Amino acid sequence: METQQRKSWKRKMHEIIYEADTPHGKLFDVILLVLILASIVLVMLESVSTLDAKYHDIFYAGEWIITLFFTFEYFARIVSVNKPRKYIFSFYGIIDFLSTIPLYLSFFIVGSHALLTVRALRLLRIFRILKVTRYIGESNKLTKALVDSKTKISVFLFTVLIICIISGTAMYLVEGEESGFRNIPVSIYWCIVTLTTVGYGDIAPITPLGQFLASIIMIMGYGIIAVPTGIVSAEYTKSALKDTPDKRIHTNTQSCSNCNHSTHDDDANFCDNCGYPLHDD
Amino acid sequence: METQQRKSWKRKMHEIIYEADTPHGKLFDVILLVLILASIVLVMLESVSTLDAKYHDIFYAGEWIITLFFTFEYFARIVSVNKPRKYIFSFYGIIDFLSTIPLYLSFFIVGSHALLTVRALRLLRIFRILKVTRYIGESNKLTKALVDSKTKISVFLFTVLIICIISGTAMYLVEGEESGFRNIPVSIYWCIVTLTTVGYGDIAPITPLGQFLASIIMIMGYGIIAVPTGIVSAEYTKSALKDTPDKRIHTNTQSCSNCNHSTHDDDANFCDNCGYPLHDD
Amino acid sequence: METQQRKSWKRKMHEIIYEADTPHGKLFDVILLVLILASIVLVMLESVSTLDAKYHDIFYAGEWIITLFFTFEYFARIVSVNKPRKYIFSFYGIIDFLSTIPLYLSFFIVGSHALLTVRALRLLRIFRILKVTRYIGESNKLTKALVDSKTKISVFLFTVLIICIISGTAMYLVEGEESGFRNIPVSIYWCIVTLTTVGYGDIAPITPLGQFLASIIMIMGYGIIAVPTGIVSAEYTKSALKDTPDKRIHTNTQSCSNCNHSTHDDDANFCDNCGYPLHDD
Amino acid sequence: METQQRKSWKRKMHEIIYEADTPHGKLFDVILLVLILASIVLVMLESVSTLDAKYHDIFYAGEWIITLFFTFEYFARIVSVNKPRKYIFSFYGIIDFLSTIPLYLSFFIVGSHALLTVRALRLLRIFRILKVTRYIGESNKLTKALVDSKTKISVFLFTVLIICIISGTAMYLVEGEESGFRNIPVSIYWCIVTLTTVGYGDIAPITPLGQFLASIIMIMGYGIIAVPTGIVSAEYTKSALKDTPDKRIHTNTQSCSNCNHSTHDDDANFCDNCGYPLHDD
Repeated sequence: METQQRKSWKRKMHEIIYEADTPHGKLFDVILLVLILASIVLVMLESVSTLDAKYHDIFYAGEWIITLFFTFEYFARIVSVNKPRKYIFSFYGIIDFLSTIPLYLSFFIVGSHALLTVRALRLLRIFRILKVTRYIGESNKLTKALVDSKTKISVFLFTVLIICIISGTAMYLVEGEESGFRNIPVSIYWCIVTLTTVGYGDIAPITPLGQFLASIIMIMGYGIIAVPTGIVSAEYTKSALKDTPDKRIHTNTQSCSNCNHSTHDDDANFCDNCGYPLHDD
Repeated sequence: METQQRKSWKRKMHEIIYEADTPHGKLFDVILLVLILASIVLVMLESVSTLDAKYHDIFYAGEWIITLFFTFEYFARIVSVNKPRKYIFSFYGIIDFLSTIPLYLSFFIVGSHALLTVRALRLLRIFRILKVTRYIGESNKLTKALVDSKTKISVFLFTVLIICIISGTAMYLVEGEESGFRNIPVSIYWCIVTLTTVGYGDIAPITPLGQFLASIIMIMGYGIIAVPTGIVSAEYTKSALKDTPDKRIHTNTQSCSNCNHSTHDDDANFCDNCGYPLHDD
Repeated sequence: METQQRKSWKRKMHEIIYEADTPHGKLFDVILLVLILASIVLVMLESVSTLDAKYHDIFYAGEWIITLFFTFEYFARIVSVNKPRKYIFSFYGIIDFLSTIPLYLSFFIVGSHALLTVRALRLLRIFRILKVTRYIGESNKLTKALVDSKTKISVFLFTVLIICIISGTAMYLVEGEESGFRNIPVSIYWCIVTLTTVGYGDIAPITPLGQFLASIIMIMGYGIIAVPTGIVSAEYTKSALKDTPDKRIHTNTQSCSNCNHSTHDDDANFCDNCGYPLHDD
Repeated sequence: METQQRKSWKRKMHEIIYEADTPHGKLFDVILLVLILASIVLVMLESVSTLDAKYHDIFYAGEWIITLFFTFEYFARIVSVNKPRKYIFSFYGIIDFLSTIPLYLSFFIVGSHALLTVRALRLLRIFRILKVTRYIGESNKLTKALVDSKTKISVFLFTVLIICIISGTAMYLVEGEESGFRNIPVSIYWCIVTLTTVGYGDIAPITPLGQFLASIIMIMGYGIIAVPTGIVSAEYTKSALKDTPDKRIHTNTQSCSNCNHSTHDDDANFCDNCGYPLHDD
């Protein structure tokens, strides 16, 4: 009897923390989202030395509040799952752990740069946003479009890489160290900067032959930038014209309280990974 | 009797100022457009110190002529509407007010930078152009296409932001202050400059690891810039292939003289907001 | 009898110079094309001071040969048309005249910069290439696609301009003269450089608020650059899917020897402008 | 009898080296790919002077191992073909020869820059990757899409070139040498940098008129960059909507052991170039 009550209590907690179907679950997700955003803003502001000098104490207090909440959340997540190990060693489990410990670690670490890196770990919480907002159908569609044209994109990136290696080496031989083309890797970096039309200008060809070669690379870049755009456009146009509802896009936020698996069909009653019932009838 | 005559006079004025169906209404709109453009050009030229030193008096005179016309127009708009309050506190009412007062305010304000900001308010008149040219069907179509792909664009912007925050922080840790990556917000700014392929070059990675990371960000930018293009292309292709006239696009410029509501159907006889008759039969 | 012979001689000359249907006409066009290209390369090389110092005499000789040919061609064109006036005051007539005289004018002109401008007139011959290559169907298709989406492009450019004026003024107020935003026109120039993702970096925001504003402008640029691409993509996709031969594209190079009109249907026997017979039966 | 055995041995070798249908053939291709990549990485690292100073001996040893393998491979290729001459003077034969000799040549060459150029020849091996990976259907599709829109791309490039020549000359006349527009070729280079939206910023207009002209060029660049994208998008959309398997795409890696011809249909039994049997029945 007690076990069942405890189980039911655990179920409820699981529903609140892992799912977004109930009002409490939604509220929890919203609070979590706000705190994650606050945490990210804090990390950014702390990195601005003038602001950190002025408001250090406020930042520090805010960081403690957020860290305590995330610590509580981390243990709540462990407690409310049937198999805590699966959560702890899952991608989001590791993210949750790493993004919570920096403040505790800061007591033991010496050296400002090491500390900086550790503090930046808190930014990993940003991946939680992806988890929280995963039920937005649109982002799934975007991901699907990208995954569908994966082969095309790989071939494209491979072609770009070969062009960059050849052009980079040519520019290195033509321009040499005086123009900033210090070695082949730097020349390849310059070539990527040019082909993607970013063009910082920290390295730029000076000799007429180098400028001529660069012009050819840029005009090639014209054609090359058209390829990914064409791929994505075609993918979007196809889906816009077909207009059939894609059944592979999930909006069900039910997550199995046994194995934590979370991409179930909208009408699923049992976890399709371990067979555990999803609803608390 | 007198009231009716006055009303008819008011109606006519309303027709001229608020609508573009009659020759007088069109003429008024054209004059307004020309004066707005002249006003914008004046504000720009005044900001060029060499020109301002030379032609200050001409600029000043021109500004007075324009301001007097806009003052007159502002009061005419108030007088010719049944419910002046609605106009005064509407978006365009506030725009009209703010863009007219700078010259009057300049008598009371001391300090060149405050004065500059106040004078720049005159540029708000540019939004009037949007109002005047609202009956161009094409711009409505453009707006519609953007609105239709709003969700897609939001998801896209959100993804870009997350990529920028993560990459920006990584670059801040890798490059540090020596290369100009002073703090995380600045690094994120650099990341946006790079991902959008703008690439000023005021901040650029120097260390090999930083250049390697930057290369990956740039090549990601390749794929990312393809997404909005793909969305808009698909939207345009869909509408180009379907080719059905879109009924939601308004070309009726009739504006209610009672409540100032202005997006009525082409065959509307009464205001669809307050029921007041639109035509002066 | 003599008149008729003269006429037939004139006809032949007209066929060679103005048309590209006969072997002689094609040969003439090819020679013309080669000389135009040689002429353009010469103007470019002369502008390089180190090359000009070394090979001045060769350049000068080459320029004389080309100028003499174009002078001969100019008079031949006048002689072989029925109504020389129409040719002389046509677009290509003026181009031909202006691009031929620089060398003659150089005897009368003093001052190196004025001379430079006059010499650059020779580059106008490049427009002749357009005339010579006008029978390439593809370039007509390209032009047609651009013309078809004219309204869309105008609305787009207008929107870009308004965004640039507003953003430019905002950046001018925020950044001020210290960062290079000297006046509103320069700020608008910066804004165009940024929105088009060119990003020279000669002017770049320094203040945090300015960099924040710039980030928003850049991300807007993302969306904006998608619009012309979407328009052209839709236009191309439509024509690629419909695949119907477009009859408005001309490949007939017959040009009327009376009025010089040149865009006739493929099966035309008489000039559709003046009724003069096109063929020499 | 002996001849036949030798022939069979030759056949097997041919199968391993030139084809990728058997396990041995695939393994050979994978080893080759790995060594090519290792070789490319080595050339790059050697160009970094700090790394070369530290690990010179390791690099040198690695280079000898790779060169010996490629030397062996080169002779094996010659031996296993019926008509060695055809291979030796084919594109890939020359590539193989040139990319193998640099280390042997380095004993005879004096002068660091000449040596550098010779060593860079090793990078030609990158083209072998293309040969090895030629059986990826996707890359053939990409090439096909590009080839199909060849005419469109030529017309486009030609238009870009004319715009660059005219704009470049105009900017040269307007800006002059003070702003870095030293001569017309450099101005054209600047114009390509601007039109492709690369925008290094090493050369940038300073005068108001120059900045105004540059703005127009940039906005034109907007429209121009849309053209190749539109072409490729249309091409991709067409093929995505038609979805018919393209029979011209080869996945057969059989290569004729007589004449070395390698693009045969999937069900070919005899070389379609010389009639020699493809399979070893």
